Amino acid sequence: MISFSKQNGKLSVFYNQLKILEHSEICPLVTLKEGKESVDMYRGNYFIEDETLSTLSLGSYLLSESYSEGRGVSTLTFSAQGLAFSIELSEREGRLHLCFSSLPKPYNRLVLRLFATEDEYVWGCGEQFSHFNLRGKNFPLWTQEQGVGRNKQTEITQIADRLDRAGGDYHTTFYPQPTFVSSRRYFVHADTYGYANFDFSLPTCHQLEFWDVPATLTLSVKPSLLEVVQDISLLLGRQQILPPWVYDGIILGMQGGTSTCLKKLEVMQSSCVKVAGLWIQDWEGERYTSFGKRLRWNWQWDDELYPGLDTEIVRLKQQGVRVLGYINPYVLADHPLYEEALRLDLLGKRCDGSVYLVDFGEFDAAIVDFTKAEAVAWYKRVITDELIGFGLCGWMADFGEYLPTDVVLANQRPAMLEHNAWPGYWAKVNKDAIQESGKSDEILFFMRAGSQQSLASCQMMWAGDQNVDWSEDDGLPSVITSALSLAMSGMGLHHSDIGGYTTLYGMKRSKELLIRWAEQAAFTALMRTHEGNRPKDNWQFDSDQETIAAIKRMTDIHVYLKPYLMHLVAQNAQQGRPVIRPLFLHYEQERFFGVKDSYLLGRDLLVAPVLEEGSNSVVVTLPDDVWVHLFTKVEYQGGTHCIDAPLLCPAVFYRKESDFASLFASLQ
Amino acid sequence: MISFSKQNGKLSVFYNQLKILEHSEICPLVTLKEGKESVDMYRGNYFIEDETLSTLSLGSYLLSESYSEGRGVSTLTFSAQGLAFSIELSEREGRLHLCFSSLPKPYNRLVLRLFATEDEYVWGCGEQFSHFNLRGKNFPLWTQEQGVGRNKQTEITQIADRLDRAGGDYHTTFYPQPTFVSSRRYFVHADTYGYANFDFSLPTCHQLEFWDVPATLTLSVKPSLLEVVQDISLLLGRQQILPPWVYDGIILGMQGGTSTCLKKLEVMQSSCVKVAGLWIQDWEGERYTSFGKRLRWNWQWDDELYPGLDTEIVRLKQQGVRVLGYINPYVLADHPLYEEALRLDLLGKRCDGSVYLVDFGEFDAAIVDFTKAEAVAWYKRVITDELIGFGLCGWMADFGEYLPTDVVLANQRPAMLEHNAWPGYWAKVNKDAIQESGKSDEILFFMRAGSQQSLASCQMMWAGDQNVDWSEDDGLPSVITSALSLAMSGMGLHHSDIGGYTTLYGMKRSKELLIRWAEQAAFTALMRTHEGNRPKDNWQFDSDQETIAAIKRMTDIHVYLKPYLMHLVAQNAQQGRPVIRPLFLHYEQERFFGVKDSYLLGRDLLVAPVLEEGSNSVVVTLPDDVWVHLFTKVEYQGGTHCIDAPLLCPAVFYRKESDFASLFASLQ
Repeated sequence: MISFSKQNGKLSVFYNQLKILEHSEICPLVTLKEGKESVDMYRGNYFIEDETLSTLSLGSYLLSESYSEGRGVSTLTFSAQGLAFSIELSEREGRLHLCFSSLPKPYNRLVLRLFATEDEYVWGCGEQFSHFNLRGKNFPLWTQEQGVGRNKQTEITQIADRLDRAGGDYHTTFYPQPTFVSSRRYFVHADTYGYANFDFSLPTCHQLEFWDVPATLTLSVKPSLLEVVQDISLLLGRQQILPPWVYDGIILGMQGGTSTCLKKLEVMQSSCVKVAGLWIQDWEGERYTSFGKRLRWNWQWDDELYPGLDTEIVRLKQQGVRVLGYINPYVLADHPLYEEALRLDLLGKRCDGSVYLVDFGEFDAAIVDFTKAEAVAWYKRVITDELIGFGLCGWMADFGEYLPTDVVLANQRPAMLEHNAWPGYWAKVNKDAIQESGKSDEILFFMRAGSQQSLASCQMMWAGDQNVDWSEDDGLPSVITSALSLAMSGMGLHHSDIGGYTTLYGMKRSKELLIRWAEQAAFTALMRTHEGNRPKDNWQFDSDQETIAAIKRMTDIHVYLKPYLMHLVAQNAQQGRPVIRPLFLHYEQERFFGVKDSYLLGRDLLVAPVLEEGSNSVVVTLPDDVWVHLFTKVEYQGGTHCIDAPLLCPAVFYRKESDFASLFASLQ
Repeated sequence: MISFSKQNGKLSVFYNQLKILEHSEICPLVTLKEGKESVDMYRGNYFIEDETLSTLSLGSYLLSESYSEGRGVSTLTFSAQGLAFSIELSEREGRLHLCFSSLPKPYNRLVLRLFATEDEYVWGCGEQFSHFNLRGKNFPLWTQEQGVGRNKQTEITQIADRLDRAGGDYHTTFYPQPTFVSSRRYFVHADTYGYANFDFSLPTCHQLEFWDVPATLTLSVKPSLLEVVQDISLLLGRQQILPPWVYDGIILGMQGGTSTCLKKLEVMQSSCVKVAGLWIQDWEGERYTSFGKRLRWNWQWDDELYPGLDTEIVRLKQQGVRVLGYINPYVLADHPLYEEALRLDLLGKRCDGSVYLVDFGEFDAAIVDFTKAEAVAWYKRVITDELIGFGLCGWMADFGEYLPTDVVLANQRPAMLEHNAWPGYWAKVNKDAIQESGKSDEILFFMRAGSQQSLASCQMMWAGDQNVDWSEDDGLPSVITSALSLAMSGMGLHHSDIGGYTTLYGMKRSKELLIRWAEQAAFTALMRTHEGNRPKDNWQFDSDQETIAAIKRMTDIHVYLKPYLMHLVAQNAQQGRPVIRPLFLHYEQERFFGVKDSYLLGRDLLVAPVLEEGSNSVVVTLPDDVWVHLFTKVEYQGGTHCIDAPLLCPAVFYRKESDFASLFASLQ
């Protein structure tokens, strides 16, 4: 129900009794801007600036209401200086939809102010690594490299900025999404892929700036935050269930050739580690750059580096060990797939008609143009023939966030508007290729880049490239923040590289970090390790016997939880209840609104990982319920507790009233 | 794509290249009839006859095609003797929709003939117990008691007819659905609840007779039968996942008071039987009739028969044993809930305004009028307060199929049109009450009566009241036929009373039957026993130590399969792949089109239960694949095999290539 009230020159708009918009001459709902952007990109790091040439606040308004075909539409028309902009409000399927007129010339940015209260919290906007509660900050929504360090105060970030322009910032992310949830129990989703700024720093409004007018802005009000979250994925799409084998062990990231990989597997299996898969990202070959080891982006089995892998892959599968590979949406210049795509005219171009080559750091690759149906069909065939046909049971579907803004695409749309859509296109290519091959129940792919389309099209997110450190913005703690942000955006499946990835500027992964990371990963839907970009600098899963034993222990726990994890993944698929949930989705109290160092794994497990180097305990606030420590079996009441957490005994609690209590209770 | 061809005076209609309709003057697509029905009902058994007063075949036709708003509509108008009837054909969401004009007076039956080929198979029409392939028979679609015996040739049916008018016939069912699947890879669904005859006995057409013109008739063509089935539930609704505790053991049906039930539980637990629940159908009290023991239909805890159950229910749940109860959509005359409903005016009426009391066999009960919003709200409150509030974690939601055709309902619609809808209303009351109480993940309800709405609203079907015998039409074999028919109607969750129910006319359940039935039930989503209507005449789960051991063994296997079963139930929820599947959904060959004595449990288990008394082997045709016997681990190739199946070693095979092969292989 949409209603309006006018008082003291202020117009207020309510949806289902909740105030959502407020307009006055002094603080108008709509401001138009004329901007001129400059976009600079260096290896996936974007530097976007906008020069404001003029601004127009639309102070006057006119409200008209009409009914036709049983449907009421209210139209608000705002105007100033003879220019008008109108918003149609209507209700459909229990949600409010705002449709907009086009912008009067010369304006090209729309600034909308949604009503906010000072005590409101905001979450979502896709995958956010630094902030969970978004209040108090502006969030540019633009898919790009997440950055190294991601905090201008830290030394690593400063070095990365200085040497490689790669430091990132609190908002840089592979996966932005123009969707947020408010503690006032509503969500807003803007149907646009244009660049946007969602500014939650103002006390009485949320200021949303769009460089492309959204097709619609949807708002949904529900009785609880859990229902709000469920409604996001009802609108945008729900994720599938995962292939059942993913719960049967850990997926070990390894490289370096057939015999190297088989030896690593043998070491782990001889220590009784349950291995569900070998993730071999260099199955297609390798190349070396100053960054470290890189992959040969030509998505065909390298039988020199991996002799006999075609038969090993079958043998391993019979043993219950899947082989996973790697692909991304680029083809390496002067290699066979590139040549084929060139011949078929399937690549993105420069305005002079030549192929657009992107610099990925000492090598160039071309963009498969997913706006062209033939290119989509071709790339699906590459996946079907080269990956699935070879026997891979999964892969990292890397990248998606680099689309240059000056590439010329087959559909003629400006790349500025396709840039944010690209990760979703890439997800859909993977999903459709798998589906069309009839292997949806068998194959796993995971992505770091995302868009609103990922909710329906991406099978599993991973948190991208964390530093191999403990930093809040880019280390172990950030994988929880990112999972929680995605959960609040309607994407309920998430995991991370165990141990992190980025190994630069003197960072080296420690044994302690690797084990703590594995402790956390055991309490997600999927465990997978990564060697990092400089494997030799990092502590690895097989670096010593104690580490192997630790990996075994955490994997055993993960596998033991299979029935519970399967239930959660099915719940996410069916009801849109994310697997990793903020505490407040079940305990809707303000004291939990900012919590990002502990989380609920489903309804019944509360996980408070050790996120500090050298620490052997955590301070955790348990909600009001009876909680049993998963390992010590000690019972705790709601309240704040300091819990011992030596290695391999993380602070994880189950709800005593859980339907799975007997499973948890029997964990040795 | 809809297309037409005209040749030799015949009009043919194609949808996506498949011929679906054919019309000629000699064999017209549409015939109108004027009928006068007589409906006689005795305790849920309906005797419906129709006197044909006149018939009009519409020989002439006119085809017109129009396009508006980007959508093409073709209209076929058939006429004769100055009367016309028209059908609009249009495509929406990849399906063909037929919309009909109203019938010209005095006609009140529409007979439609769909094109068919002689070699075509047909499945579905809801829950069919006698025939899986429906070709060659007429199927009246009318929800009612399934009958005792259900085969006019058998002695039991003849006795039941003679003594109680209760014998039933091959088509009598609790759950008819105007939906069928053809081996030509399409389904048809008619959006109507009126009485219908789906006659598949004619060589060149399927003749569908409707007593109420359907709102639409939907037809969908897909590349495979599996996709056809998935599309039914995409159209009509998908089932939820089940509460996770249902896989943790068997649900034991028991009665007779607190101490009796606790003693039975103790006996089973002391033999290490995994018990997930006690299903106590007389929790609300009992009454005795000549039929056997009956229940007191006043849905409140009977604290005389069940002293202390309010505290036991809590204690048992802590042990992992749920208590389940019973309810149906009637209230017993002269009892508190009846008095309350009467006062609030929530009951179905006679045309003189008095309450309509239904004879249920030596007692009367009134109908809660689900066409009245207040009655729905009240009954949901009864469920919430009396059942959920008391601590029940599930119940049988019995009946739904008895609505008398002369009851006067609040919505003023003729009961003839509401009769078939009633089971769906009843399902929705249960589902909504549970959902509104926030306990969807914890509570299980199961129903025997159904309608097309059950796909979206019923949590779990059970096969109703089988005889405690081996008969094809009403004994153990019929529970497989019924599960397969429902699967082909889009309903993928089904189980049965282990051991059957109906114990009349000298039938007594044997030990062998009980154990064989448990063997089959272990390979469904849910194991639940029933004592039967005359418990003392029947062999029970605790009748001797060998039986207890058998129940333990089959329950252990069922629990062991939990990850696989959870995966199947999630697949059903998400993709509409039924849990129990005909072989041909994965091996689409004619030789499997009639198979109803073996089935696939998901993609990877093939189950061929012993269905004959005294038999210790089965003959089973395995599809082309490598199959491993689940117990002996012997490998079999596709083809027909005679397999030993002594007690507790049923013929169950897993696909060697299964993703769950290691789970199956490790089963001891």
